Amino acid sequence: MNATDKFLAASAHVDEAAVAPLPNSRKIHIEGSRPDLRVPMREVSQADTPTGFGGEKNPPIFVYDCSGPYTDPAARIDIRSGLPALRQRWIEERGDTEVLPDLSSEFGRARAADPKLDELRFPGLHRKPRRALPGKNVSQMHYARQGIITPEMEFVAIRENVNRAAYIESLRATGPMGEKMAALLGRQHKGQDFGASIPAEITPEFVRAEVARGRAIIPNNINHPESEPMIIGRNFLVKINANIGNSALGSSINEEVDKMTWATRWGGDTVMDLSTGKNIHETREWIIRNSPVPIGTVPIYQALEKVDGKAEELTWEIFRDTLVEQAEQGVDYFTIHAGVLLRYIPMTANRMTGIVSRGGSIMAKWCLAHHKESFLYTNFEEICEIMKAYDVAFSLGDGLRPGSIYDANDAAQLGELETLGELTDIAWKHDVQTIIEGPGHVPMHLIKENMDLQLKHCKEAPFYTLGPLTTDIAPGYDHITSGIGAAMIGWYGTAMLCYVTPKEHLGLPDKNDVKEGIITYKLAAHAADLAKGHPGAQIRDNALSKARYEFRWDDQFNLGLDPDKAKSFHDETLPKESAKVAHFCSMCGPHFCSMKITQDVRDFAAKQGIAEAEALEKGMQTKAVEFVKSGAEIYRKV
Amino acid sequence: MNATDKFLAASAHVDEAAVAPLPNSRKIHIEGSRPDLRVPMREVSQADTPTGFGGEKNPPIFVYDCSGPYTDPAARIDIRSGLPALRQRWIEERGDTEVLPDLSSEFGRARAADPKLDELRFPGLHRKPRRALPGKNVSQMHYARQGIITPEMEFVAIRENVNRAAYIESLRATGPMGEKMAALLGRQHKGQDFGASIPAEITPEFVRAEVARGRAIIPNNINHPESEPMIIGRNFLVKINANIGNSALGSSINEEVDKMTWATRWGGDTVMDLSTGKNIHETREWIIRNSPVPIGTVPIYQALEKVDGKAEELTWEIFRDTLVEQAEQGVDYFTIHAGVLLRYIPMTANRMTGIVSRGGSIMAKWCLAHHKESFLYTNFEEICEIMKAYDVAFSLGDGLRPGSIYDANDAAQLGELETLGELTDIAWKHDVQTIIEGPGHVPMHLIKENMDLQLKHCKEAPFYTLGPLTTDIAPGYDHITSGIGAAMIGWYGTAMLCYVTPKEHLGLPDKNDVKEGIITYKLAAHAADLAKGHPGAQIRDNALSKARYEFRWDDQFNLGLDPDKAKSFHDETLPKESAKVAHFCSMCGPHFCSMKITQDVRDFAAKQGIAEAEALEKGMQTKAVEFVKSGAEIYRKV
Repeated sequence: MNATDKFLAASAHVDEAAVAPLPNSRKIHIEGSRPDLRVPMREVSQADTPTGFGGEKNPPIFVYDCSGPYTDPAARIDIRSGLPALRQRWIEERGDTEVLPDLSSEFGRARAADPKLDELRFPGLHRKPRRALPGKNVSQMHYARQGIITPEMEFVAIRENVNRAAYIESLRATGPMGEKMAALLGRQHKGQDFGASIPAEITPEFVRAEVARGRAIIPNNINHPESEPMIIGRNFLVKINANIGNSALGSSINEEVDKMTWATRWGGDTVMDLSTGKNIHETREWIIRNSPVPIGTVPIYQALEKVDGKAEELTWEIFRDTLVEQAEQGVDYFTIHAGVLLRYIPMTANRMTGIVSRGGSIMAKWCLAHHKESFLYTNFEEICEIMKAYDVAFSLGDGLRPGSIYDANDAAQLGELETLGELTDIAWKHDVQTIIEGPGHVPMHLIKENMDLQLKHCKEAPFYTLGPLTTDIAPGYDHITSGIGAAMIGWYGTAMLCYVTPKEHLGLPDKNDVKEGIITYKLAAHAADLAKGHPGAQIRDNALSKARYEFRWDDQFNLGLDPDKAKSFHDETLPKESAKVAHFCSMCGPHFCSMKITQDVRDFAAKQGIAEAEALEKGMQTKAVEFVKSGAEIYRKV
Repeated sequence: MNATDKFLAASAHVDEAAVAPLPNSRKIHIEGSRPDLRVPMREVSQADTPTGFGGEKNPPIFVYDCSGPYTDPAARIDIRSGLPALRQRWIEERGDTEVLPDLSSEFGRARAADPKLDELRFPGLHRKPRRALPGKNVSQMHYARQGIITPEMEFVAIRENVNRAAYIESLRATGPMGEKMAALLGRQHKGQDFGASIPAEITPEFVRAEVARGRAIIPNNINHPESEPMIIGRNFLVKINANIGNSALGSSINEEVDKMTWATRWGGDTVMDLSTGKNIHETREWIIRNSPVPIGTVPIYQALEKVDGKAEELTWEIFRDTLVEQAEQGVDYFTIHAGVLLRYIPMTANRMTGIVSRGGSIMAKWCLAHHKESFLYTNFEEICEIMKAYDVAFSLGDGLRPGSIYDANDAAQLGELETLGELTDIAWKHDVQTIIEGPGHVPMHLIKENMDLQLKHCKEAPFYTLGPLTTDIAPGYDHITSGIGAAMIGWYGTAMLCYVTPKEHLGLPDKNDVKEGIITYKLAAHAADLAKGHPGAQIRDNALSKARYEFRWDDQFNLGLDPDKAKSFHDETLPKESAKVAHFCSMCGPHFCSMKITQDVRDFAAKQGIAEAEALEKGMQTKAVEFVKSGAEIYRKV
């Protein structure tokens, strides 16, 4: 079951499925203010509209792209070498860091020196660890508060706009048809944003201001220069996180790297490595060196491994060494369950499912065993010192999140949330970037209370929620029970949604589960963007629906979140290539296709022309004449 | 591709997968006021709590059961004979119907007389059609308005309570442990019901009153006496519908019967047969004779088939004959797109996706071709006369529902909704039961407007929505894009959710897709029940979460909506039988299991007892002393 033993670094290879370009897609880069600032996007080209539907040229659509160089045919991919260090120069230029002669953590040094690990070890360049110079703070928040717009901030500003302005502009430049298309594709419902402040266009200065006030973070450890900057905040596109990681019972290093590349291919904005099994230090090195997205971890898991699973034997020293070990590998954010206070623990005694957060239960056990507040809480300022020396962001863990509908929004959960708000203040005092983790299992009508209290206690620090799951009764479908809650809380203001896979509560997700979880959360995040009225969010829906209406089957597949599945579903009943241009599908057949009939209606009206429109008018006893006039005109062919 | 030609009635057989009882489940019947009124439910038995967790006996859980006799090992199932006519006597007793000597519809008679159809034809008893005596109205609404509580009303009252009172009572009778269990399992969050009026217990009189005022319907054609009564209304459990049906391009009669039994097994409350392919009259007969749930259709589909797909050649006479044909087969509700008025059609011209409802587009085409209002609208009162002679319910179709986010909540859609409200008044004047169909594609923030306008225009006639889909960009995952909207609109007050399968927009659903759609909608409906605060809805969540916490793996699977998938997911990584009693799973392994650690915390505290609690108290600088006291007491074993 555990393939780790068979894994050999020398023969590790990239998942072929993760490097194929997506259909009709092209990786483009938009250059910023300097030539080494190149923001990746995916351009999806479209076929022309069939003559019978108007015959116009359809513009390419640009979509946000998390997949890094993997989907770029121009890139040379070798997971044994890792990705290029695209942020290296930006970090160096700031002149506030130093390269250390050796790893600072004892554990890291011991692993590095162990020859038994050689055949597992990431074989590429092991850069020496980088750390802030004494007295320096290298967090993006610190720069933002100094008024500095970093290349990272400019990068995310360009990225968030998804080439929208250039796109609309280029359409308009093509004349009246382009104007019409720009108006059509660009039209969007006014959103309901619950007090967010989303500008029409994201500027680097807006990014800086949001990071400075703590309303957004750019998780970018200086030891993970391979990552493409991204931003998490309620005034930006809703992001999603994918959890991967082995356990004592399964999975190998290569499988975890595969899950990471697979997760980013389908839209994972960040990836958390939650490994609790064997060789998690080495597994993490492989993942980080090959990851184009920020990597998060829960350091207490590895710390617990170091004391053979005996929570009460954990010490601040072991934990501190783990933080430094991981910070020097390049972990971009740490989940720290510092809000599990002694006084909250008894509040969980009457719960249906007690403490379901692994980190939360570890800390609760420690607290009870030692009769004192956890070393995470008592050493929180020292943790901040470590975070700012590498720019690791806090993800303040909700160790007391509810694990069942029964336990939702109880005193333990909401008490901890208040403490997380206090810890946010401390982190911000140190200019350390901070997000706040949220539930869990919550029925729909109690979701908004979570968001409202989080905004209040944590002063708009980004909320990062697991689901929430809106019912407990569907094991095997918890990506959906939670996708419902995720879409809703994303709408209400959550900045990042932590995915849940179909295997939740049942087993460790495999690659298929990772994809199912990712796509579910991607669509939930997008539904939230639409509901918030995020500028330009509707372009992709509009383009896809236009393709659908015009029976451009391939475009419909390719503009979707999962072209492969859409195409295979279509082809199950109509596999022939000719069916891709057919003006009907297997659902209704040619007679019953409403889209075809609608077109017939338009054609009919066009043939009759104005006479028809006038006849229609005469036939009507209502005040709707003006609609007929405008409508009938459009029914005539352009 | 089309297996119809090979189908032979003589060898038709039930889907074996549909008749196996669900694991640890038993079909029970609760008897009402008369011995032939036996309401089915499924009882799911549970294992005892393991000794380490308290050792208590866990009561069986009762769940609503749509599967009819199929999951009853005592029933003899032969789809060539059909199901027993359980409502026959109730219908006869009312003495307001007559058995006709022959079918009233020309088409029905022609099909019956065609020997070429013999080998396809349902071989069981062809009952003569039953119709109201001249001048009589046999709708449940009519009886309700006369103050009559029918056996059907009593049946649904018992069904809606899901044996809750007896269950809680029986628990309490077992003493203090039972009291504790009743309190634990029965505890529920107060809901937010947006003005619904859900009583703590459903009485037959409440059912009558709701049906009388049109706020609920019991779709029960007198020619479908095989069906088990169920109710659709905002003050009852949220229901779901599954669409099945062949198309010109695929599926056989047996496949459609299989989809129906499969759909009801997993929780389809009603099934719509949307066949548009070959032999749809015979297919429908097979489905109805074997269906334990109400069957809905869209009669215009078959009418269109009768004029070879030429919408403009449709006539009132052909349509009328189709209504009678289907009413005498036993269809329980008809989708009628009578709200597609001439004046709304031009409003769709500027849409992204025009008219996407098949029925809507057929009627639009007819209206334009004839320059007049549709025969559905102009003959609406005569349609009411047919409906009340058989007790067929209206499902007033939203022919102008939006087919894309772009088109959501536009003038065409909302105009039609207003007309559906006017038609509701007419239907109610005839005491004809009526529900209203709703969208479609709607972004989250515009969903509530749909519900609010529907409640207003249609005076709380039950709303029956397709999703809505909250984004267009995920073909292949539209069960999820729409499950999000379905859960939300169910919470807001929608009475029945029409499922969407993963194949939506791409192809005809197969059996797997049907199940995926059903489970998704079942969980969405349940999430809505929880959010509305439907009495007792949380019992199943509570029981499942208790099982989860106590590592009763089999109970966790069996209390879920899909025990088979849950078990197979679990077994992918831990297939051994011993893993079903293991106190950990493959996700975290034994060291990292938070539930195990929580129990360790409880055990630890228990061992230390009061001394520990006092020590804890002394160690605290906070005001939380009272929590510790109560908490620490609970930490000790009972």
